[in-house]
Amino acid sequence: MATPLQIGLMVFPQVTQLDLTGPLQVFSSVPGAEVHLIWKNMEPVPSDSVLAMTPTVTFADCPQLDVICVPGGYGTDGLLGDDEVLGFLRKQAEGARYITSVCTGSLVLGAAGLLKGYRATTHWSAVEALPLFGATLSRERVCIDRNRITGGGVTAGIDFALTLVATLVDRATAEMVQLRLEYNPAPPFDAGSPDTAPAEVLAAMSERIAPFRARRMEAVRQAAARMS
Amino acid sequence: MATPLQIGLMVFPQVTQLDLTGPLQVFSSVPGAEVHLIWKNMEPVPSDSVLAMTPTVTFADCPQLDVICVPGGYGTDGLLGDDEVLGFLRKQAEGARYITSVCTGSLVLGAAGLLKGYRATTHWSAVEALPLFGATLSRERVCIDRNRITGGGVTAGIDFALTLVATLVDRATAEMVQLRLEYNPAPPFDAGSPDTAPAEVLAAMSERIAPFRARRMEAVRQAAARMS
Repeated sequence: MATPLQIGLMVFPQVTQLDLTGPLQVFSSVPGAEVHLIWKNMEPVPSDSVLAMTPTVTFADCPQLDVICVPGGYGTDGLLGDDEVLGFLRKQAEGARYITSVCTGSLVLGAAGLLKGYRATTHWSAVEALPLFGATLSRERVCIDRNRITGGGVTAGIDFALTLVATLVDRATAEMVQLRLEYNPAPPFDAGSPDTAPAEVLAAMSERIAPFRARRMEAVRQAAARMS
Repeated sequence: MATPLQIGLMVFPQVTQLDLTGPLQVFSSVPGAEVHLIWKNMEPVPSDSVLAMTPTVTFADCPQLDVICVPGGYGTDGLLGDDEVLGFLRKQAEGARYITSVCTGSLVLGAAGLLKGYRATTHWSAVEALPLFGATLSRERVCIDRNRITGGGVTAGIDFALTLVATLVDRATAEMVQLRLEYNPAPPFDAGSPDTAPAEVLAAMSERIAPFRARRMEAVRQAAARMS
């Protein structure tokens, strides 16, 4: 019997839970995949909502993964200068087939030096950060550059994960997962991107997130300075 | 200050976690909403994936909710004859503004007698079950009939939740949440519905889920017989 596909998603405090749970649902629907939730220890980790997420394996005990995936969220700020996290990612990246992220998880890959010279994407509110890590910004919803696959903000994780399953296994398997998850989206409004959202909605959201965005860019600058 | 909106999502063993975590992400992004994960006790509940879900409140301690939402999954079979679950839903339904579900969660509402005379929807693989509870089947992705709002399978929960936020609060708030979650979906394939999936993909998935579907219909028939 073939060794099961080893897919690992990093959990961390203040992760945007849907960044993780969207891909988790897709990966868990792949026959024969073994999915891990990885963190420093096994204690439940608070997400950005009332849902706590309990890791299934520690960095120390994690097997070599075929796919490592870092989701995003406000908590990524705290990971950009965390040597334990960055060291774990660099070590896994040596043997992984795919090094991936959703949303601002790509900034953590960037801080680990894993996107230098690669095209990559991120949440729309963080696009100015990626070039500081030597990456070339892509505005695709799912960006594939060699074995780096990065997804855009939050819900892009579902599109990312289906794309990855088609690559890892085959297209029919990805389509079966899509059918099972009835992923036939019909957003009630057309506000899912800064390019399509009504101007006043974009302005109100930009104002609300401005302090978080400023704090993130400060963390990114510090992390980028440490790399050089 | 206004009392916060009280929104409750039921957790239960073998819940399809994305049925719950999609709406959870949307509801948690609404300023002033208080979101609860509800179950019989406070122990972590195993989902359909490696993610365990820890309730935040018990049935006994749950406040009167403005919105009660039942997600779906294979675990709904076990709820259809569970008087503690059905009694909790009936009691909450007396005071709730909206009685809602995602995926096969609508079967649980049905078993509680809460969909009799209402139009409702569910996962594509369970459409034959709803009429047994006196509901009229809708094939809409999000079905609104008076204060019953039901979503289709799994990922429909995101469309459902954005629709509900526009109703509960206002459209601009729903659009801000959509923008924050970058919900601008771009499925890599067109296989998200039995109407669009390639015939061989639908056939393979139908064969794989046949035993689960048969078991579900048996549970539905028993629950429907208890109602009459």
